[in-house]
Amino acid sequence: MKNNIKTIDGKLLMGPGPTNIDRRIKSALSKEPLSHLDPDFFSILDNISSSLRSVFQTNNKVTFAVSGTGSSGMEMAMTNLIEEDDEVLILKNGEFGSRMENLAHRLKARVSTMSAKWGESFEQSLVIEKIKSMPNLKLVAVVQAETSTGVLQEIDLIGKHLKNTDAIFLVDAVTSLTGVSLKVDEWGIDSCFSGSQKCLSVPPGLAPITFNEKALLKIKNRKSPNSSWYFDLKMLINYWGEERVYHHTAPVNMLFALNEGLSICLQEGLEKRFERHKSNSKYFLALLDQAGLKPFVNQKKFKDLPMLKSVIIPEGIKDIELRSKMLINHDIEIGGGLGPTKGYIWRFGIMGFNSKKEFIDELFKKLTLYIN
Amino acid sequence: MKNNIKTIDGKLLMGPGPTNIDRRIKSALSKEPLSHLDPDFFSILDNISSSLRSVFQTNNKVTFAVSGTGSSGMEMAMTNLIEEDDEVLILKNGEFGSRMENLAHRLKARVSTMSAKWGESFEQSLVIEKIKSMPNLKLVAVVQAETSTGVLQEIDLIGKHLKNTDAIFLVDAVTSLTGVSLKVDEWGIDSCFSGSQKCLSVPPGLAPITFNEKALLKIKNRKSPNSSWYFDLKMLINYWGEERVYHHTAPVNMLFALNEGLSICLQEGLEKRFERHKSNSKYFLALLDQAGLKPFVNQKKFKDLPMLKSVIIPEGIKDIELRSKMLINHDIEIGGGLGPTKGYIWRFGIMGFNSKKEFIDELFKKLTLYIN
Repeated sequence: MKNNIKTIDGKLLMGPGPTNIDRRIKSALSKEPLSHLDPDFFSILDNISSSLRSVFQTNNKVTFAVSGTGSSGMEMAMTNLIEEDDEVLILKNGEFGSRMENLAHRLKARVSTMSAKWGESFEQSLVIEKIKSMPNLKLVAVVQAETSTGVLQEIDLIGKHLKNTDAIFLVDAVTSLTGVSLKVDEWGIDSCFSGSQKCLSVPPGLAPITFNEKALLKIKNRKSPNSSWYFDLKMLINYWGEERVYHHTAPVNMLFALNEGLSICLQEGLEKRFERHKSNSKYFLALLDQAGLKPFVNQKKFKDLPMLKSVIIPEGIKDIELRSKMLINHDIEIGGGLGPTKGYIWRFGIMGFNSKKEFIDELFKKLTLYIN
Repeated sequence: MKNNIKTIDGKLLMGPGPTNIDRRIKSALSKEPLSHLDPDFFSILDNISSSLRSVFQTNNKVTFAVSGTGSSGMEMAMTNLIEEDDEVLILKNGEFGSRMENLAHRLKARVSTMSAKWGESFEQSLVIEKIKSMPNLKLVAVVQAETSTGVLQEIDLIGKHLKNTDAIFLVDAVTSLTGVSLKVDEWGIDSCFSGSQKCLSVPPGLAPITFNEKALLKIKNRKSPNSSWYFDLKMLINYWGEERVYHHTAPVNMLFALNEGLSICLQEGLEKRFERHKSNSKYFLALLDQAGLKPFVNQKKFKDLPMLKSVIIPEGIKDIELRSKMLINHDIEIGGGLGPTKGYIWRFGIMGFNSKKEFIDELFKKLTLYIN
């Protein structure tokens, strides 16, 4: 390979996910399949649920992995938690907030939004004020780690406020899970979803998700059925729960891999993993500064993500041309901007398996060939 | 392992799917991931679409794999093709017809059904008569291979009739694809979905699907948006098509495996593969007869599936006890009945990779330890 990383067997994936994967994940992926109704497989499902409870920091019984990519987690949460005419509030400061808004409209909710510029986050007190002004509010949805901009949204106070209301607190933790602190129970999060291919460093294809009793009660009391069969939680919990009623054929090999990824994660320890992401984020920013490059997120005003760094493309450099050179000449993938930031920022993932000084060194070694 | 099959590395999966997998699939699964936006990955997507066109026997441009299990293919097809108040006709002779009926209701269609007993199929002429009596019909949905009963539904004449009407012909080919003849274009099928884990012998997690121009026009002319974001074809075709617009992070490793599975299939050749399933089906029935067991499908009146054999549980044998013994003592998985056939039939999969005399021999060698 054209990059100098000996521990991977292909391109170095320094974009917004998927990441490279540990050899233990490769070995799990290539195991002989089991039936989705085999008691040995049920043990794996139980283990996944239990490990997911640890990483979500929750005691929620209903904690499992949706058979689809990260966005299917969003769809699982929202199609179950939102009914026609429900008043919902969506916080929008990037692509993934807008995506939740889009789905809420499809579900015929009465959608209100709060917007911040791409690259900015929300002051929690202002969000709480807005929530207080909406007495019929049924759900508030927030992205903890906006992958499109690299900004971190603080959510603990919003959640604690919502605990004492009837509104459900839904958090998109696709990019944040196991990379930065996320305390589902303590922070009053009622439902939270993630993706396998970010800080968990398992290939894309599964969406970890959790629902607490408040969320389950809202679903139980629905007046209309979920418009989706595939994402109907009422049926799915009978498969992931003790009843083991067949719903759909679970993606067994991907679940072997998720189980292994969670085990790697818990062997490292959550706090150590957060610390590693933090320290490699600092290391990245130091090299960025050395290279004369500027972060997109204004770090004096907002918190940036430790696992996903957005960087302003320097003047005179052509976005696509540089990314192609990195990919073709060096087998290193970096991400471009989305929407309004297209051509204006790059996005560098230093997530999970890929949050390593060695990888960051290699990235800057090659990147600086073209920008200085 | 406790079974005597040397070519697999675990349990012998002789149930209704997943099957065991070729070592080439294992090696594809454990490849280093690529970015879902890498041109090298786009080549793989193109190759998958092209191979899927071959196995579906279609020229449909929009032919790809849904990021979910077989049932997500159903949901992709129906959420796009059905609008509120559409008059639809669903043929029900088992679990999977009922599942389509269930989803059609969720989508608020005006649902009519034709029903046959579990284990029976429909006379095509009667279906056509029913269709003729419904002038406002928007969609007809049929299961080609009812995995719950093992019966084959002939569909060519229904499709040819529907070609000259405004109604869309939707076919569930989850278990049939590459195991029995399926001619999407010739038979006038407008949309057809399948699953990766049956005759393709790739692990569960992907749903091959195809839409023709008639189906796309129906979707283009929708008055209301699809209630699903995840399954919105209008957006997804911009990712699988030439535009390559990001929609969700594709399940890259599973797609490596599907690409390999399709390549194995086309190297064997479709006709040879059908022939192999047919001949091993005969072989299975001969051993079944020798063992004094009776098929569930009345083969004088109906066609049974070559890849999924349903068998009446002999008197005096306890269903769950026997299946547990096969699994625990011999590492051989066989399937039980669903719904009304629970406890009354077993279901044996001899699909794709597992359609092998050696596997059938091993199955009967162990099974007959308990039933004679």
